[in-house]
Amino acid sequence: MNENTKKDMNVRTDLATEAREMVNQSRTAEKEIEGVSYSEKKEESFTVSKVIVDEIGAEKIGKKPGTYRTIYSDAIKKQDTKLQQQTARVLAKELSQIMNECGIDSNASGLIVGLGNRNVTPDALGPIVMDKILVTNHLFVHEPSYVKDGYRRVSTIVPGVMGVTGIETSELIHGIIKEIKPDFVIAIDALASRSIERVNATIQLSDTGIHPGSGVGNTRKEISQETLGIPVIAIGVPTVVDAVTIASDAMDYVLKHIGRELEEIDRPSKALAPGGMVFGKKVLTKKDMPTKDRQETILGMFGTLKETEKRALMQEVLTPLGHNLMVTPKEIDGYIKDMAHLIAEATNASLHENVTLDNFGSYTR
Amino acid sequence: MNENTKKDMNVRTDLATEAREMVNQSRTAEKEIEGVSYSEKKEESFTVSKVIVDEIGAEKIGKKPGTYRTIYSDAIKKQDTKLQQQTARVLAKELSQIMNECGIDSNASGLIVGLGNRNVTPDALGPIVMDKILVTNHLFVHEPSYVKDGYRRVSTIVPGVMGVTGIETSELIHGIIKEIKPDFVIAIDALASRSIERVNATIQLSDTGIHPGSGVGNTRKEISQETLGIPVIAIGVPTVVDAVTIASDAMDYVLKHIGRELEEIDRPSKALAPGGMVFGKKVLTKKDMPTKDRQETILGMFGTLKETEKRALMQEVLTPLGHNLMVTPKEIDGYIKDMAHLIAEATNASLHENVTLDNFGSYTR
Amino acid sequence: MNENTKKDMNVRTDLATEAREMVNQSRTAEKEIEGVSYSEKKEESFTVSKVIVDEIGAEKIGKKPGTYRTIYSDAIKKQDTKLQQQTARVLAKELSQIMNECGIDSNASGLIVGLGNRNVTPDALGPIVMDKILVTNHLFVHEPSYVKDGYRRVSTIVPGVMGVTGIETSELIHGIIKEIKPDFVIAIDALASRSIERVNATIQLSDTGIHPGSGVGNTRKEISQETLGIPVIAIGVPTVVDAVTIASDAMDYVLKHIGRELEEIDRPSKALAPGGMVFGKKVLTKKDMPTKDRQETILGMFGTLKETEKRALMQEVLTPLGHNLMVTPKEIDGYIKDMAHLIAEATNASLHENVTLDNFGSYTR
Amino acid sequence: MNENTKKDMNVRTDLATEAREMVNQSRTAEKEIEGVSYSEKKEESFTVSKVIVDEIGAEKIGKKPGTYRTIYSDAIKKQDTKLQQQTARVLAKELSQIMNECGIDSNASGLIVGLGNRNVTPDALGPIVMDKILVTNHLFVHEPSYVKDGYRRVSTIVPGVMGVTGIETSELIHGIIKEIKPDFVIAIDALASRSIERVNATIQLSDTGIHPGSGVGNTRKEISQETLGIPVIAIGVPTVVDAVTIASDAMDYVLKHIGRELEEIDRPSKALAPGGMVFGKKVLTKKDMPTKDRQETILGMFGTLKETEKRALMQEVLTPLGHNLMVTPKEIDGYIKDMAHLIAEATNASLHENVTLDNFGSYTR
Repeated sequence: MNENTKKDMNVRTDLATEAREMVNQSRTAEKEIEGVSYSEKKEESFTVSKVIVDEIGAEKIGKKPGTYRTIYSDAIKKQDTKLQQQTARVLAKELSQIMNECGIDSNASGLIVGLGNRNVTPDALGPIVMDKILVTNHLFVHEPSYVKDGYRRVSTIVPGVMGVTGIETSELIHGIIKEIKPDFVIAIDALASRSIERVNATIQLSDTGIHPGSGVGNTRKEISQETLGIPVIAIGVPTVVDAVTIASDAMDYVLKHIGRELEEIDRPSKALAPGGMVFGKKVLTKKDMPTKDRQETILGMFGTLKETEKRALMQEVLTPLGHNLMVTPKEIDGYIKDMAHLIAEATNASLHENVTLDNFGSYTR
Repeated sequence: MNENTKKDMNVRTDLATEAREMVNQSRTAEKEIEGVSYSEKKEESFTVSKVIVDEIGAEKIGKKPGTYRTIYSDAIKKQDTKLQQQTARVLAKELSQIMNECGIDSNASGLIVGLGNRNVTPDALGPIVMDKILVTNHLFVHEPSYVKDGYRRVSTIVPGVMGVTGIETSELIHGIIKEIKPDFVIAIDALASRSIERVNATIQLSDTGIHPGSGVGNTRKEISQETLGIPVIAIGVPTVVDAVTIASDAMDYVLKHIGRELEEIDRPSKALAPGGMVFGKKVLTKKDMPTKDRQETILGMFGTLKETEKRALMQEVLTPLGHNLMVTPKEIDGYIKDMAHLIAEATNASLHENVTLDNFGSYTR
Repeated sequence: MNENTKKDMNVRTDLATEAREMVNQSRTAEKEIEGVSYSEKKEESFTVSKVIVDEIGAEKIGKKPGTYRTIYSDAIKKQDTKLQQQTARVLAKELSQIMNECGIDSNASGLIVGLGNRNVTPDALGPIVMDKILVTNHLFVHEPSYVKDGYRRVSTIVPGVMGVTGIETSELIHGIIKEIKPDFVIAIDALASRSIERVNATIQLSDTGIHPGSGVGNTRKEISQETLGIPVIAIGVPTVVDAVTIASDAMDYVLKHIGRELEEIDRPSKALAPGGMVFGKKVLTKKDMPTKDRQETILGMFGTLKETEKRALMQEVLTPLGHNLMVTPKEIDGYIKDMAHLIAEATNASLHENVTLDNFGSYTR
Repeated sequence: MNENTKKDMNVRTDLATEAREMVNQSRTAEKEIEGVSYSEKKEESFTVSKVIVDEIGAEKIGKKPGTYRTIYSDAIKKQDTKLQQQTARVLAKELSQIMNECGIDSNASGLIVGLGNRNVTPDALGPIVMDKILVTNHLFVHEPSYVKDGYRRVSTIVPGVMGVTGIETSELIHGIIKEIKPDFVIAIDALASRSIERVNATIQLSDTGIHPGSGVGNTRKEISQETLGIPVIAIGVPTVVDAVTIASDAMDYVLKHIGRELEEIDRPSKALAPGGMVFGKKVLTKKDMPTKDRQETILGMFGTLKETEKRALMQEVLTPLGHNLMVTPKEIDGYIKDMAHLIAEATNASLHENVTLDNFGSYTR
């Protein structure tokens, strides 16, 4: 998880789809943001979306230029093993495509990086996935006769986080890459989302590299095609929402909720105050439907604040309570284990031709 | 953690001090609630409070009649080992007093119960403490010559939670108590709090028994002096706040925050709008100081809701997002380990005369 | 793991097949031991054997009368996921048969007991399996409409070990059974074996009940059909060999090894001392083939000791070094996880009609 | 743990004292081995020994030239917290001395390396110690004003093992050292011993560098003053004995044991065969006291084998059973935790002037 995520949570998200949505929300026109293309395919239990960002779009939504694929699936939250296997297949397919687009051929050697802190459950995704990646590099070096066709050279590293190691994570990775000289890098990390619905339900793949611990404009630390000359693919899963988000969003939910309730006022079954909805000391009627203008009625001056102002205010009031508050489902320990298994299965299948979508389990432990 | 905590979070808290405060907040007069006595001693780094509730008070604040002691200390959150040792001493002293008041003599045999779910970090406090309790019961039975004076018979049990075992936790404990026949019970559990400040910073001791998994008026399941005829002491630590609390409280913090800002308007150093504070599209002045009446200006109709109405509304809007959301500090894994160590040390010292405040560590592993 | 296993390791093993073999080894005739019937079926990757012991046989081999089924499979040690799934199927079939033989019908409610110490890796099998058992009892009680046909009432308990709880494990289980009143019990436990080849490769099922912590003739503590009036099935897996075994057996391997070497002396490819094998200062020839008589040549007076004398001597010399030495494979942590998964899958399938051999994974997490 | 330890276990040990002893055992004369100096101080509960090896000695005992200090203490095995604290003090003192001798001044920056496999309990010592090391490097870089006098720059790394990462551990460390440029390195690792008595009871410190995964004469992989130009201190603790050792040593114990028994034959209290000891079919008398010559009587031709021949034979017979067998105490999980805490405390105190022997705990979590 990006160690600086907290600091500027009010202006950014780790997910490109969210960044795009945020910009869209504050716009009146309906057409797509300049420099950002968006497509989406829905299947029964999945939505796979693709956001392509160019230099212009990058500035608009605050995300690096490149391709971002997002798989949305309830498989983990529903604890549905079959659906998880299907999701792994979808992920394997998308990852293979992004590897093709990056020009990674079947003999290229890969370094897989598990970012995050093993001792903080929602941040342990990367390290746990690493435990399940099929590594082969040492066999190619020490027992080449043992390696069959259909496998590539794969090694893994769990760099830890700066608070534990004392070392900039990106420096560490740079040092290792210089020594190991892989042909490409795949990094797996837990992300922060602005939406509790996306937590443990969204997997983002991108070809834009990683910036562990990066602050503002610190390109030296970036790990990407630009800085290293090799493809760097990032796989990220939001596993927490910060407390600022939940508090700030709750107010929006209040507005939406009141809107829905008021919509239903005329339905016969609704037993409310005649023609209205009791809300505190007042009775709201359909004319109070929360539009921009009437938000003030319901939420007062708070209702007139812009999204960013609201978040800034929340941050200001919540910070003294402990700035590292996070919101997770109570079942997070189980979710992380399942998600790690799913990602490891898909990654192993994408890395090695001989690990197909049907012999998944035999390789991932 | 009480498995039904979530269901009625809007009307209850596991902490008696919080229950008392909540009732106090909605009262205008200043004198103490009838049937509830409160005292408090502050030391440099601790506050120890004592709430005594009688039958009348029980009805007022929704807590069983009995004595509730609360130790407030920042030791865990500050990761300050010395302060943690001091807190353990305070806890040992309070626990010894409550054991005395319950008439537990130095030969009485104790069953220590670690409630909660070992696989959910913030709920694992009870099970982890059990790993560190000095048990002696089997030595008294099988190797009596090995047991020196100054120790009592102590055994432990980790009953698990109903979602994992399929068995009502209280039934399980009843079955074990009937078989083992201890002279008293101490139960240790993670609690829910309504205040993020109290999380991992408050230890509550009470002589009122435990009600694991209890719902409405289900006394059969209660484990207490009344139902079992032996003293049942509960030690509880709030380790989570639910998302409803954080969202609902955030609004109160907004009001308090604006109040503080407005207070400072006249101070020379404050560079604001002349005589006021910019808030969204408006300028607030001292006359907008958030009193009961003016909350509506700032928070609209939402500001006019009562505490319980606000929570009910939040619950309604947050539930569809996943009803098991919890708010914890990111450092929860480390906090739980430290807190478990602290409680085990204090409990061991209170249980055995030979384990004194100075040889703590030698017994607790 | 039986807490007293160590004490009398020289006279007993937890596996009935081993007990039978030990008696067989010391006999000259070839026919089966009286009161013990043995059958075996070999399939490609498994051997399933069945030992039926009656009252007479019980005395001869020191195992309770009843039926013992043993599945031998390399699946775990080979880390072969497919073979593990096949083994789970075989186990499910055998477990279903033993349940039928015990007269357990499809509506009978079961209590599944995970014996052993969660904090000692090779003894943690039972507790880890419990984490993966599909429990339903609470749903039958609290949400009966939620339970579909094809499921029975199942609950689980992890009683811990006496050294940690201070309570006799069997007393604890008795207390719980009296309160919960299940129709049958299945207990899962890690065992000790006398053979390193069987460790993590053998699963024993029996209908003879369990005797956790039992010593000599202490029937009060037995948990069995006789003491409780309900079927008690035990599933056990050897996960350690004690150091006495490895040391004592090593000598036998030395003899066997020399035998094999001498056998090959005449083969043309063998380049040894002409017609013999160099061993220390001597040259062994075919006439030294280790028969009973000639063991003394090779192992001296040690070679003349009986099996039990050898073990007693080893015990005497190794005890001062630390009486809790155990021998395990270095990969034990991974083996235990896989074995727990395998057993949980098979048990879930045997317990619930609706959990079939093809939807295993969807229920076991 | 050295990944190649197993391969040549019959010729080497990780402990210099053991290597010296082994050479001494096969010599008749009593004076010290040429090129090896040995000194020892015994205190009540500790023995601290110092072996200095020069180029000549290195060849004789198969250990690199340099200084090896060994602390022997029962503190962990006895689970005696006070004694563990005393051991930590002794270790801190010895580590400070070795740092002084290496010319490491109080401002030198250190990289602490935790070798071993986190997921294999007896090999997890290094990684667990790293969780408890006080790191400061990032504070010096990012928040220099926050760092007080009395602290040096410290960072840590857990490189993993080749079987998991696919990368030679030494390559990884080389890459990191080149990037981070520390002034010195301290590496912490679990070792193999040839003596079960030394397991979890011995801490070795040396200034000879580390050779993770090194085989014969592979200097490229060495991490030492010679290859890097900076001091490399190794702290190692034996946590396992291999099965070959236990089996081979058991025979020696048999001989010693018989010797002791025969010694006592004339004591009045000894009720044996008149003037002798029954052993199998024979009666041993004092004249059979196991001297070199008479070992054959007791152990046959096996008794005539040299130490290395015995080990080679054991290896040959045990290998087919699973070449990764290890012998550990059953309590290994607890021992490793305690040992990690002890080493982290001592290391923190040696690294930072401000962490004294009296405020240990406040820094180590």
